[in-house]
Amino acid sequence: MSSHVVIIGAVALGPKAACRFKRLMPESRVTLVDQAEQVSYGGCGIPFYVSGEISRVEDLRSTPYGALRDEGFFRDAKGVELRTKTRALRIDRARKTVLLEDLRNGKQEELSYDQLVLATGSRPNIPPLPGVTLRGIGPATNLEEAEAIRNAVSEGKAESAVVLGGGFIGLEMAVALAELWGIPVTVLEMADQLLPGFLSPTLARMAARDMEEGGVTIRTGIKVLSFEGENGAVRQVLTDAGAIPSDLVVLATGIRPETALAKEAGLSLTEKGLILVDEELRSSDPDIYAGGDCVAIPHQVTGKPFWLPLGSQANRQGRVIGGNLAGRHETFPGAVGSWGVKLFGQSAAGAGLTLSAALAEGLDAVSVHVEQVDRAHFYPEHAMMALELVVERGTRRLLGIQGMAASGDALVGRVNAVTPLLAARGTAHDLSTLEVVYSPPFASAMDIVNLLGNVAENILEGRCRTMDPLECEALWDARENGTVCFLDTRVKGQAEKHPALGDAHWLAIPQDELAARIAEVPTDKDLVLICNTGLRAYEAQLSLNAHARPRNRTVSGGLAALGRMGIQLCDSGEPEEE
Amino acid sequence: MSSHVVIIGAVALGPKAACRFKRLMPESRVTLVDQAEQVSYGGCGIPFYVSGEISRVEDLRSTPYGALRDEGFFRDAKGVELRTKTRALRIDRARKTVLLEDLRNGKQEELSYDQLVLATGSRPNIPPLPGVTLRGIGPATNLEEAEAIRNAVSEGKAESAVVLGGGFIGLEMAVALAELWGIPVTVLEMADQLLPGFLSPTLARMAARDMEEGGVTIRTGIKVLSFEGENGAVRQVLTDAGAIPSDLVVLATGIRPETALAKEAGLSLTEKGLILVDEELRSSDPDIYAGGDCVAIPHQVTGKPFWLPLGSQANRQGRVIGGNLAGRHETFPGAVGSWGVKLFGQSAAGAGLTLSAALAEGLDAVSVHVEQVDRAHFYPEHAMMALELVVERGTRRLLGIQGMAASGDALVGRVNAVTPLLAARGTAHDLSTLEVVYSPPFASAMDIVNLLGNVAENILEGRCRTMDPLECEALWDARENGTVCFLDTRVKGQAEKHPALGDAHWLAIPQDELAARIAEVPTDKDLVLICNTGLRAYEAQLSLNAHARPRNRTVSGGLAALGRMGIQLCDSGEPEEE
Repeated sequence: MSSHVVIIGAVALGPKAACRFKRLMPESRVTLVDQAEQVSYGGCGIPFYVSGEISRVEDLRSTPYGALRDEGFFRDAKGVELRTKTRALRIDRARKTVLLEDLRNGKQEELSYDQLVLATGSRPNIPPLPGVTLRGIGPATNLEEAEAIRNAVSEGKAESAVVLGGGFIGLEMAVALAELWGIPVTVLEMADQLLPGFLSPTLARMAARDMEEGGVTIRTGIKVLSFEGENGAVRQVLTDAGAIPSDLVVLATGIRPETALAKEAGLSLTEKGLILVDEELRSSDPDIYAGGDCVAIPHQVTGKPFWLPLGSQANRQGRVIGGNLAGRHETFPGAVGSWGVKLFGQSAAGAGLTLSAALAEGLDAVSVHVEQVDRAHFYPEHAMMALELVVERGTRRLLGIQGMAASGDALVGRVNAVTPLLAARGTAHDLSTLEVVYSPPFASAMDIVNLLGNVAENILEGRCRTMDPLECEALWDARENGTVCFLDTRVKGQAEKHPALGDAHWLAIPQDELAARIAEVPTDKDLVLICNTGLRAYEAQLSLNAHARPRNRTVSGGLAALGRMGIQLCDSGEPEEE
Repeated sequence: MSSHVVIIGAVALGPKAACRFKRLMPESRVTLVDQAEQVSYGGCGIPFYVSGEISRVEDLRSTPYGALRDEGFFRDAKGVELRTKTRALRIDRARKTVLLEDLRNGKQEELSYDQLVLATGSRPNIPPLPGVTLRGIGPATNLEEAEAIRNAVSEGKAESAVVLGGGFIGLEMAVALAELWGIPVTVLEMADQLLPGFLSPTLARMAARDMEEGGVTIRTGIKVLSFEGENGAVRQVLTDAGAIPSDLVVLATGIRPETALAKEAGLSLTEKGLILVDEELRSSDPDIYAGGDCVAIPHQVTGKPFWLPLGSQANRQGRVIGGNLAGRHETFPGAVGSWGVKLFGQSAAGAGLTLSAALAEGLDAVSVHVEQVDRAHFYPEHAMMALELVVERGTRRLLGIQGMAASGDALVGRVNAVTPLLAARGTAHDLSTLEVVYSPPFASAMDIVNLLGNVAENILEGRCRTMDPLECEALWDARENGTVCFLDTRVKGQAEKHPALGDAHWLAIPQDELAARIAEVPTDKDLVLICNTGLRAYEAQLSLNAHARPRNRTVSGGLAALGRMGIQLCDSGEPEEE
């Protein structure tokens, strides 16, 4: 079967599908078109190019062995005809042709196809604000934009920067500008937390603290009204909370799928305007495949179509499309939506649903927060890791996991270990007995993922009653009101009388002395049980329950979680695990 | 339901089961007995104590918040009665009693139980060699032995050490002695490779190279005959390949399950002497549970009972037993046998079957070796990772994965991501589309685990014909014989004429020039296709096939794999990925 495959879009999915298909069907013809001049690049590397960690923009377009992926490369190494600066104007499905325009000279040409691939990707959201077209304001989604930003900072033209949007790209750009170039950076996020939709408010607080410790100013719940400039260049950002001077504004306000061509061709789209594809990534036209940033794929937790515009998805889907172009009938299973982002000292990662996303889906969900070291506590180099599990109450089905840790590799490894369980409708018990590699330099004998399953079971069965660290903060802020008493259950030598609070509000009784000293514990107050990470407090809770002091709750993640959020009740102790 | 639970063995599983049960049934009585004085320790931390990275032996017995897990701790914090230096002599199942002996005074006592837990663990294999009882020779499986070794080295009494056994513990001990104390160390392994049963010969060569680069002498395929000493202390190790001077000999010759008590009590054992348990970890006596190093658990790949003596298994099984003692009917699913070990610059890890283990099981298995960087190649800090997949031919079922990398966390994360697929009988295609967290600091857009699935499919479908790097070495060693020609397919500027070999044995044609220069490629020779990691060579292979040069095979992992094994054909290039 020799045939002509035309692929529209040559960033990630397009080239992958093209090359895979050519390897399977060497005698076929493949034409790859893209409206940009620079194609086949690692767009996710843009923040690292802006930071200077990647020295040349060509590095993002090169293979690991240094070959630039240009027209000659695709022709000689891959047997694929690449046409850059060529825009696809219209698809004629009946005649199976695509109308192309050469942007260099305006010439139009009709190209016929046997099979077509839409890899049209996405484009940045540009907020329709007054002044948004001023010089110095722009997104960072392609190589040209990235070069403009890097040139501005490397030539000293930017004295301070504002990043609009506290999602992945916004935070990566903020880190790039602040860490490597030392520019004062402010991140403005409309939602009341960073990484909305990806982290719980608690973990987002930890992320914000890490950003702030890196020198970035974080402003959440803030609305940008307009931009003001001088001589056509931006000078300040006006918000509902005042003006912020800035001569560089990065628009990291999200992206939207590029599906105009598909829509005009009459292909089926979802309500949100994504191209609908079947499990072989075929659109509603059997001769047209689509994948990457412009399609909807099945969410393996909700079962519904969703949008996951990531380079990794584009690559994996591109390979499947390449196979199916050759008649293989390969299937793409969908995804649970895993993600990761490196901040300053911390990285964040997750997969599946957050608690609020699960509740919005109508699921009876609860979240479980634990803190534990990322490897054996006795192994010299270790650091705390925070993990949050979202789990359905009745079925105990795992719905999502999110986390924050100093070692991104260690965190990502945990998220990846849990991802197959999310896809397979695993339960808290499955997590409790999940096998992960054990050796002291890499994991605890009872690893944090197992602990997460254990604690989830304890909570779901009502044995452990916890509160979120944010609720603890609220109670702490109202600590003088008399209805609450904090009980410090850490071991002897750590549990201490509070320097500023009397016994009515703060009691220090090590957990192993609790049974003997039960008379000291008030019966008329709600007890907030504090320890380093929550485990001592859980043991104390069981003891209090047994001694008729049932009005008690532990603080999830204990002082470790509070500390990482910047909430200081007392001197923090050592990490805890068992 | 109040009851008396007696647990024999207090290292890992015993304490875990005891504490879990007590939390569920606070009113019950638990007695935990152990013949040693020092109990409840992280035995896997012993090499790190010997190295000095862990300063005090107590650190291995302490909770992360610094509480020593002694009798007082178990009594006050856990409500568990711990009896150390107490040996269980006999179980009377009919009367439900255990006969105990206090090793401090020889007093015997009969203790009745409602439910019993056997957590008797394992003991070291002591090879029955002449001289093995000399001073300075011993295993490193408990804290007393660990202290003896560390004292010998810290007091300068050991000028050179020999480690018998090239398994995990042997290698960890060798690293501890060589890296931290600078003692000349020789590892002697009877098998002809390190980590036999856990790594392929190829990966084991990489492990050996890393050990040697760390200064450790590796001798495989060597048999120890006896030990010779002076004044009762060891002075040299006699082998079938000569004498090796040494005043410290660590016996890392494996362990065996401690099941004498179970056997004498008439409990069912496997052929290999492991206690048989059901999925609730109950022995053939419904009132006796067993877990940890003394039991057989189901292997999730072979379906057969197997032995996985790891602290992590003991902890996870201990929690299940604790729940079942309280009447919960929790199940333990078995394991695929994941493991990890940190060497010097490299770490090794794996899960499931090696190729030779799979073949020994009668499976029609093949192995697939890939090399790729451990994160985006354009991200500044990256390193090569080697992964090997074992897969069944017909079904394409995943049977095992093993690897070697500089970042242990990154490697372990990949193994953990694949472990659930092994347990769930996933296929190469599942691996090809496996979702793993993507962000340039943590992964490639087409991550190495996906690449592994892709290459496996190409090999299983006959599109890619490879040879193992060890076979390439053999052909290289016979390179002058004329039947083989090496073809360097790297990009222009990397592919080079060989300084020592003529065109008859070494041709340099960049892959993208191959079609144009096909006339230079001989038709009468077997071609060995070389590139940096194997991907260029695969493209060259497709091109050669299309041009009537079918006598060709690529080298799995390319120059990167060869280089990591210490095999140098020519100057190595840069990492490769696509």
